[in-house]
Amino acid sequence: MEVIEVLHMNGGIGDASYANNSLVQQKVLSITEPITKEAIIDLYCSTFPKSLSIADLGCSSGPNTLLVVSELIKAVDKLCRKMGNHSPEFQIFLNDLPGNDFNTIFRSLPRFQGKLTEQMGSGYGPCFFSGVPGSFYGRLFATKSLHFVHSSYSLQWLSQVPEGIENNKSNIYMASTSPPSVLQAYYEQFRRDFSLFLKCRSEELVTGGRMVLTILGRKSEDPSSKECCYIWELLAMALNEMVSEGLIEEKKLDSFNIPQYTPSPAEIKSEVEIEGSFGIDRLEISKVHWNAYDNEFCPSNAFKDGGYNVAQCMRAVAEPLLLSHFGVAIIDEVFCRYRKILADKMSKERTEFINVTVAMTKKKL
Amino acid sequence: MEVIEVLHMNGGIGDASYANNSLVQQKVLSITEPITKEAIIDLYCSTFPKSLSIADLGCSSGPNTLLVVSELIKAVDKLCRKMGNHSPEFQIFLNDLPGNDFNTIFRSLPRFQGKLTEQMGSGYGPCFFSGVPGSFYGRLFATKSLHFVHSSYSLQWLSQVPEGIENNKSNIYMASTSPPSVLQAYYEQFRRDFSLFLKCRSEELVTGGRMVLTILGRKSEDPSSKECCYIWELLAMALNEMVSEGLIEEKKLDSFNIPQYTPSPAEIKSEVEIEGSFGIDRLEISKVHWNAYDNEFCPSNAFKDGGYNVAQCMRAVAEPLLLSHFGVAIIDEVFCRYRKILADKMSKERTEFINVTVAMTKKKL
Repeated sequence: MEVIEVLHMNGGIGDASYANNSLVQQKVLSITEPITKEAIIDLYCSTFPKSLSIADLGCSSGPNTLLVVSELIKAVDKLCRKMGNHSPEFQIFLNDLPGNDFNTIFRSLPRFQGKLTEQMGSGYGPCFFSGVPGSFYGRLFATKSLHFVHSSYSLQWLSQVPEGIENNKSNIYMASTSPPSVLQAYYEQFRRDFSLFLKCRSEELVTGGRMVLTILGRKSEDPSSKECCYIWELLAMALNEMVSEGLIEEKKLDSFNIPQYTPSPAEIKSEVEIEGSFGIDRLEISKVHWNAYDNEFCPSNAFKDGGYNVAQCMRAVAEPLLLSHFGVAIIDEVFCRYRKILADKMSKERTEFINVTVAMTKKKL
Repeated sequence: MEVIEVLHMNGGIGDASYANNSLVQQKVLSITEPITKEAIIDLYCSTFPKSLSIADLGCSSGPNTLLVVSELIKAVDKLCRKMGNHSPEFQIFLNDLPGNDFNTIFRSLPRFQGKLTEQMGSGYGPCFFSGVPGSFYGRLFATKSLHFVHSSYSLQWLSQVPEGIENNKSNIYMASTSPPSVLQAYYEQFRRDFSLFLKCRSEELVTGGRMVLTILGRKSEDPSSKECCYIWELLAMALNEMVSEGLIEEKKLDSFNIPQYTPSPAEIKSEVEIEGSFGIDRLEISKVHWNAYDNEFCPSNAFKDGGYNVAQCMRAVAEPLLLSHFGVAIIDEVFCRYRKILADKMSKERTEFINVTVAMTKKKL
């Protein structure tokens, strides 16, 4: 399985689309917004660029895609007005893997730009949008062409399933029952990928350029800790049930592993220091409930079904991976069982995703 | 009808897709290739940029999309090797209206880039691709961020159907029976659009930057000349037949007009001179047969059916416009009749598209 060809959030705007099941990711954006805004304001005040280039890496396709970008534009514009400066030109680069649904983003742009102009009044921008398809584990932009890089809930995805983890049978991710060699292989893959990511971005960013990354991660130093692995363990439970009923071949399950790694703040810090191009400004942890509708005002009872919400959220993210490995026939059944398992567990314990946010500045080298 | 929302070549890779019906446009690219190559080589030799930014405006989605771009990259790379220079970084911007099928382009990029690297060997590029959705009758790129602009078979499309042509009844484009006020309105729309295009590009190009535009046009100074209007007159014939049989409402046809203008070299020259930012290096005319398979070796008889080929070619281009105005029910029938009319006329006379190509350099102002 080539991750670059298979991995993408569910496209379109249907029931199982990412566009309709990305409230968790939206909450995370809102939690981390103060860090992002602080970084862009610091950047602007230290460089005053005439043309400000912002890249969002792993932009996906949905209401979140243009959310951060519009907040960043507004923050800079507000500052410019306060300082009596001309607004810079904004160059916005939206990146994701080639399988992402860019058409839906692009078709929403005229309306989005119209609304932005209406909100901001005259004298802002102009603002130029482009889509950049490709893996961020490689160069995407010209040398020193970016001022600001943002990425949220994307860098936990690895460039590939780690090699040499054939012995991770009946698990689909790191788990408490995974052999130590599996945990090691996952960690090594993360280190290779993340340091390559840092190297590429350091070539693309101007000196003094900023980067704010939020990564699905963990607090604990144990990579198989429940706080990061449980969500996949419950999906593995659904798949194992289906194996025991003969609905999925055992070999098929044994050879399936999620190309993801949920790092700790210390692991992120260590890689940034080893790579050496960036200084860390902030490194913080936040939490968000698995069920994004938890504690929300819900006019409809449908949203109170946490099992359904979380299963849909995970389906929007993981369906293309499952589809390419197991085929289409089992998909509905897997997520139906997953929903029940999730509902049961969530009624008994508090279930949260851990987010690690790191803000960095490109050093003068 | 908002042209920006409706106009796009048929997406996907099906029978009526632009991807499978764009051989005419491909032939035009090959006819004009010497002019395009000369311009990029002149540009490179006069500026030696470290990072070379190339935009293709109206890139569409199909085998032609990456054709010119790859020829330009190869031409520069070859020159660099000959001169013993390092290859520049290439920034390739692919532009079209937001309705264009960018997903299909983006999904073909990994393979395309792999092939390019294979053909060029090490030491070339790197090459960064992005998609830029939006109308070229407005700013698309940051100030002075481009070195080279290419556009083929796109600038004949106007930003809107000219206003005040309600009296162009039973015609769908300029025709010998169109009132003079209709011809005037079309020409004025072209002038407004083309001069806005030149102004926007002059802001985006660096001094000395080049632009090569090929526009579906005409030789004659008569805007209703058969050489440019006949192809639409025959489509109008099919539509009028259906009106007379009660299959299409007469009012519906009366209010339909194609947002296109096919300029003469003198009209193009005049607008470039009035706008004033560009000096004309070359201004040339070429021709291509309506049936791209004419004079080609055809293993299958299917390709010898000129009526079918031309009807499919025009369908790939104009279907979204017809669909949005007349609805889906009549589409197959219209193109079935158009095919017969085309076959009949093509058997009796030589039918060719006229292309006007203009190469320009951005002046030092």
